[in-house]
Amino acid sequence: MAYKSLLVTIEAGIASIELNRPDKRNAMNLDFWHEFPDVLRTIDAEASARVIVISGTGSMFCAGMDLEVFMNPPAKLVSGEEGRRKENLRRMVMQLQDCFTAMETIRIPVLTAIHGGCIGGGINLISAADCRYATEDAYFSVKETRLGMTADLGVLQRLPKIIPEGLARELAYTGRKLSSAEALRSGLVNSVYADKNTMMQQVMEIARQIASNSPLAVSGSKEMMNFARDHSVADGLKYMATWQSGMFQPGEMAVALQASVMKTEPEFDELWVVG
Amino acid sequence: MAYKSLLVTIEAGIASIELNRPDKRNAMNLDFWHEFPDVLRTIDAEASARVIVISGTGSMFCAGMDLEVFMNPPAKLVSGEEGRRKENLRRMVMQLQDCFTAMETIRIPVLTAIHGGCIGGGINLISAADCRYATEDAYFSVKETRLGMTADLGVLQRLPKIIPEGLARELAYTGRKLSSAEALRSGLVNSVYADKNTMMQQVMEIARQIASNSPLAVSGSKEMMNFARDHSVADGLKYMATWQSGMFQPGEMAVALQASVMKTEPEFDELWVVG
Amino acid sequence: MAYKSLLVTIEAGIASIELNRPDKRNAMNLDFWHEFPDVLRTIDAEASARVIVISGTGSMFCAGMDLEVFMNPPAKLVSGEEGRRKENLRRMVMQLQDCFTAMETIRIPVLTAIHGGCIGGGINLISAADCRYATEDAYFSVKETRLGMTADLGVLQRLPKIIPEGLARELAYTGRKLSSAEALRSGLVNSVYADKNTMMQQVMEIARQIASNSPLAVSGSKEMMNFARDHSVADGLKYMATWQSGMFQPGEMAVALQASVMKTEPEFDELWVVG
Amino acid sequence: MAYKSLLVTIEAGIASIELNRPDKRNAMNLDFWHEFPDVLRTIDAEASARVIVISGTGSMFCAGMDLEVFMNPPAKLVSGEEGRRKENLRRMVMQLQDCFTAMETIRIPVLTAIHGGCIGGGINLISAADCRYATEDAYFSVKETRLGMTADLGVLQRLPKIIPEGLARELAYTGRKLSSAEALRSGLVNSVYADKNTMMQQVMEIARQIASNSPLAVSGSKEMMNFARDHSVADGLKYMATWQSGMFQPGEMAVALQASVMKTEPEFDELWVVG
Amino acid sequence: MAYKSLLVTIEAGIASIELNRPDKRNAMNLDFWHEFPDVLRTIDAEASARVIVISGTGSMFCAGMDLEVFMNPPAKLVSGEEGRRKENLRRMVMQLQDCFTAMETIRIPVLTAIHGGCIGGGINLISAADCRYATEDAYFSVKETRLGMTADLGVLQRLPKIIPEGLARELAYTGRKLSSAEALRSGLVNSVYADKNTMMQQVMEIARQIASNSPLAVSGSKEMMNFARDHSVADGLKYMATWQSGMFQPGEMAVALQASVMKTEPEFDELWVVG
Amino acid sequence: MAYKSLLVTIEAGIASIELNRPDKRNAMNLDFWHEFPDVLRTIDAEASARVIVISGTGSMFCAGMDLEVFMNPPAKLVSGEEGRRKENLRRMVMQLQDCFTAMETIRIPVLTAIHGGCIGGGINLISAADCRYATEDAYFSVKETRLGMTADLGVLQRLPKIIPEGLARELAYTGRKLSSAEALRSGLVNSVYADKNTMMQQVMEIARQIASNSPLAVSGSKEMMNFARDHSVADGLKYMATWQSGMFQPGEMAVALQASVMKTEPEFDELWVVG
Repeated sequence: MAYKSLLVTIEAGIASIELNRPDKRNAMNLDFWHEFPDVLRTIDAEASARVIVISGTGSMFCAGMDLEVFMNPPAKLVSGEEGRRKENLRRMVMQLQDCFTAMETIRIPVLTAIHGGCIGGGINLISAADCRYATEDAYFSVKETRLGMTADLGVLQRLPKIIPEGLARELAYTGRKLSSAEALRSGLVNSVYADKNTMMQQVMEIARQIASNSPLAVSGSKEMMNFARDHSVADGLKYMATWQSGMFQPGEMAVALQASVMKTEPEFDELWVVG
Repeated sequence: MAYKSLLVTIEAGIASIELNRPDKRNAMNLDFWHEFPDVLRTIDAEASARVIVISGTGSMFCAGMDLEVFMNPPAKLVSGEEGRRKENLRRMVMQLQDCFTAMETIRIPVLTAIHGGCIGGGINLISAADCRYATEDAYFSVKETRLGMTADLGVLQRLPKIIPEGLARELAYTGRKLSSAEALRSGLVNSVYADKNTMMQQVMEIARQIASNSPLAVSGSKEMMNFARDHSVADGLKYMATWQSGMFQPGEMAVALQASVMKTEPEFDELWVVG
Repeated sequence: MAYKSLLVTIEAGIASIELNRPDKRNAMNLDFWHEFPDVLRTIDAEASARVIVISGTGSMFCAGMDLEVFMNPPAKLVSGEEGRRKENLRRMVMQLQDCFTAMETIRIPVLTAIHGGCIGGGINLISAADCRYATEDAYFSVKETRLGMTADLGVLQRLPKIIPEGLARELAYTGRKLSSAEALRSGLVNSVYADKNTMMQQVMEIARQIASNSPLAVSGSKEMMNFARDHSVADGLKYMATWQSGMFQPGEMAVALQASVMKTEPEFDELWVVG
Repeated sequence: MAYKSLLVTIEAGIASIELNRPDKRNAMNLDFWHEFPDVLRTIDAEASARVIVISGTGSMFCAGMDLEVFMNPPAKLVSGEEGRRKENLRRMVMQLQDCFTAMETIRIPVLTAIHGGCIGGGINLISAADCRYATEDAYFSVKETRLGMTADLGVLQRLPKIIPEGLARELAYTGRKLSSAEALRSGLVNSVYADKNTMMQQVMEIARQIASNSPLAVSGSKEMMNFARDHSVADGLKYMATWQSGMFQPGEMAVALQASVMKTEPEFDELWVVG
Repeated sequence: MAYKSLLVTIEAGIASIELNRPDKRNAMNLDFWHEFPDVLRTIDAEASARVIVISGTGSMFCAGMDLEVFMNPPAKLVSGEEGRRKENLRRMVMQLQDCFTAMETIRIPVLTAIHGGCIGGGINLISAADCRYATEDAYFSVKETRLGMTADLGVLQRLPKIIPEGLARELAYTGRKLSSAEALRSGLVNSVYADKNTMMQQVMEIARQIASNSPLAVSGSKEMMNFARDHSVADGLKYMATWQSGMFQPGEMAVALQASVMKTEPEFDELWVVG
Repeated sequence: MAYKSLLVTIEAGIASIELNRPDKRNAMNLDFWHEFPDVLRTIDAEASARVIVISGTGSMFCAGMDLEVFMNPPAKLVSGEEGRRKENLRRMVMQLQDCFTAMETIRIPVLTAIHGGCIGGGINLISAADCRYATEDAYFSVKETRLGMTADLGVLQRLPKIIPEGLARELAYTGRKLSSAEALRSGLVNSVYADKNTMMQQVMEIARQIASNSPLAVSGSKEMMNFARDHSVADGLKYMATWQSGMFQPGEMAVALQASVMKTEPEFDELWVVG
């Protein structure tokens, strides 16, 4: 798979997606907005991996929106009947939001490994991932506020459900940098590592463990936790039980138990191709 | 009260429930599934205690579901018309979920004190309790994922509302062990103690403080926080004010103030027997 | 602005509100309940500041409800037809709750700086603020439970959405003191400072940063995070995009970028007076 | 099955439950409150019928709560500490509500056939049923309002979701009688019949049709419409698809198609006994 | 009470509010927008009536927004920084919406009696009332659509919960007139009368019946149906039971029963003045 | 636009979509499932019409799912690991549901004109449309129940929000035919016409009126009513006001008023092409 803004490799059930415009500090240009959701959905639909790891090449994870996107707006955002221009702007924001929401709606987990800065669009991106990991030198910033706009690609909706709300509000109102130490203490990232190499090794280890589990069990867990976030516990439990009526299969348990007894790796079927 | 899988004692307003199959590492067998919700509901209905403390005898808190439950499934889960078999499976999962939800629906707080392992069904259990405490040697694991199934007794619904979501997802996808230190840092447990004896003493001290407060004030707090978790703040506030219209009683405040002045323990009425 | 229970000053876009009955440890008397929501709403309506900082004079932040409020209840809470008395009590609780909810509904952020004790009504107050900061000597207590009543001014609804739920429940059931160190670890406060002076300097620094950002970007962030807390992420994203259709203005970004290039402070318009 | 307040017969998959205290106009006494939910749950758990028809013997369907229930209240509703008395009252109301909600939570449809009056408790009862049918002489009244109390057993929650809200409000505020003609026009009842005999024949015909369909298909429809009432369409669709993953069985379709070709009655398996 | 746009009289517990700019077909000018919510809230706060009836003088109920409101917009809606102008517009729409929502939030029922046209703002108004009644010559129109704007004062939110959704959509998309006969059939109005005199007599009769009931029972019914519309049945039932813990009073039932035995009018206490 | 299962023509802002397999009574085959959502989304994205009218050629509107879809299931629905087979089935149901939900998510109204039968899949289809119209000979049936399955393409989720719930349940449990007269009385259809020609003329007249209104006003109305169905009124009002901040344009009102004065047709801009 060849992309202009991304480097994508799949091996042993793990897809690695690297933001790959290092000379632009991986700023998100139009290529990125087309390619990023496309690669996520393709991997999911083709069931070509069991877990995805997202990282960045060069000096930092991501510097946020590439200003070129703002500099050359499509004609219809700046001229024509104002109501339709606004309706168009609303749909464009929703389209960009969808690019990140794709990390939630695909069936497999998405891990993000952050080094250096994670700014603006970048913090919107990682908020929609399943898990976050960082290097000691990493920092995070809702930079949009300092640029005179309300961050609109999901960070304000998701961050307060990930870290203590009081801290999320401070970050959004000030636009200040959050250090990796604070990110760890507040639960934004699961672990902090000395440097990028160490981080990538460790995150790959976590990915390997996920890839060795039953893809259906993992996928069911993701679906359940997605649902749980936005519903009452009672609704979540009912949904879980209904899901099990179709998806619980003693056969998969047998595979796992046998492998455990034989001290081998269990071999589970892949998820099926969609459609 | 005599139970096969539990050891239950009530003293000074504190009910102690011990998982008591130490030779099976307190694995949850059929006896457990019948007795556990029964003892919770009986204590509540008879108002025979003001707080419940759950712990385990032997080497660990709980090893999870006893495999015998899976090994000898009822005939109707494995034969007969498939649709009805699935409908039956769904209801069985809901029935098991209810055994843990009982900790939420009773009127009094449930504290859990965990030593050694807390695995699979065990982590589903403690997720439904009001508070969790652990020893330094304790660890926690959503083991179901490694057994080829999606954990279905509440942990996926409740854990992400207790600890940072990114960590909850890592635990569910990998099935790895969480140490007591991580459990403390992430908010899964309120405190960690050097050993089981110390823990039991300290948790009993917390229980004693709860038991000395007005049972109606404590019970109202529990009802409000149960409701708050699954509703908007606006709905929660309205519910609170409506509750107070019946339950706020200056008489109880007078009892508390007088005891404070006299430096004695306040004596509050018990909750009333249900029905 | 002259108030009996508060000291209010506005300077450089920052409104400072001090609870100012130091000889009563800033206990909340009838004056407070009238003045507090009034000053918040006035500042917002007149757009006379961009951020509010709330602190207390004297030995502690706030000792909670002044008992005089309970001691001399209005006649109609203690005599007359019981149903109407209860209906009246319910409305009175809702009225008091609204005094704190005003911190959420106004357009600008509210920071709270807590030293010494933050007790009963005090912890209800700070739960409704955007951010919390504390001194090392600060402690927090849901004292109501020890006074024989269920805390009814918002702490039970908001605290479990700010700190780990297990800890919130322990605090509510026991009424025990939470130290500033625990408050930091659990996310109740964003930072802890050595003493009140240091705290006030640092919190003012944070306020200054907020006041230098575009008030519309900050206000949009607050509205979005208020909404996010009580809605699904999907609803939050749709609301965000719809908001942007009216409120996103490249002009504000231009102001920010130009100031950045010129290394000056950007000058943004104030929010507009309401009505 | 022998009951004091009910007459219960089961034949050809149809359970008939008759309110049977004709000399008291089927007023709901303590026997009724125990027996009614019990018989519903027993029929469901034992899967002894595929549909339930509820009607009344004597001059009318139901005159509402038997005043004896109010006349001799349990001691603890009238004496003892007031807060606990109120907590007890709240639980008692919830217990009575549950008696009617049982019609919703069981797996099979409940049809109600109403002749003469349907008053107070009676209109609360029928609001919780799946379908309502009436004779020309039937009338309906939220009589509680005229008795100085707010109707509390479900009619205010369910009626506005059954008939136009403006009419539901008029009925609740005035307590006036609604004629069967208005009941038909507003959708409260599905059909109106000349007299009780005709009604019972026709309703039994509807019940027979339901009993001849696949009990799993009918039960799935009920579960889906219960869920749909209280959730968004998007949630309902997702729940439906998840349900089908377990419950959709081509085998049942084959039974139906073959019977259709052979012009015989299809023979479907019963639902399974619960537990 | 003297108003410029309204005629208000209170007698025997019934407040009559007449839209009173007959030469302008009761179009809603700035006076109206100030006076209408004010009179509703004052009657409620002072408990000076038990029910409100709203009608119009002159040739029709209401012709909608007075175009003068659009013609002379406040300066800040048409000039100044665009983002703030939009934020201001948003708040202005919310303020106008609140003028109608006041009919929902006050404690007593609001009946509307409509003759002639009910256009634009008028149909937004009546959608927020408890009950609607009409003359044969009445018609209703979501006129805004034909004026090039989306109706924004509540009709799109409330109408589909009052009449069949398919009809509500046709009305909104086309802007066509709905006749009183269609309004009756679809449930928009509870009854249709030959002329205005007949209507006013009959609606006053309904109001008299409401005013003779216990104001607390009526007010409880309104609160419960307001809550029910926007919550699940399960939440509604729990709220109801909690409400009863404070508000259910056997004393009021005794008043009602005694009056019934003595064949007199029961005399219930008024609601209490607020605050 | 050439389709195998549909006949599509666009004229004067009205898109006509005819189900066009008359010899199969417009049963839904694989072609249909691909083409139907595609044509809806294309018309919306290209803004090539302002309203859509859906009808059927031949003897009836639609006979439901073409049995060929069931007869030749894809291999992976009938063989392979059962859990994945079920997961696949679930996604397939969701995919089919989406084909109908597309009528809701596009920006322009969808009217359906039904003659003859509307069976199974057909009633699922029309439930997702904005408005329904029928001929006197039309009938409707949730046929799935008689075929041994629970209807799963939306009718159980949407129908109870369109017609009285008691009737919706009778239809789903029995699978009986609903006549056009009942459909009119219950609100399922807005109007009934003598024959198909008359219906098509009248529905086209309604479509013409819609097409002559401002597409942005109509589209805003649709978005608001979609949102209102699944949210509280309070949320709906806030969403409405926020929408207006971007979309309300006095310019469109000027166009409408001028046309009204000049007695000409107003000329509004089209919605803009998406993307």
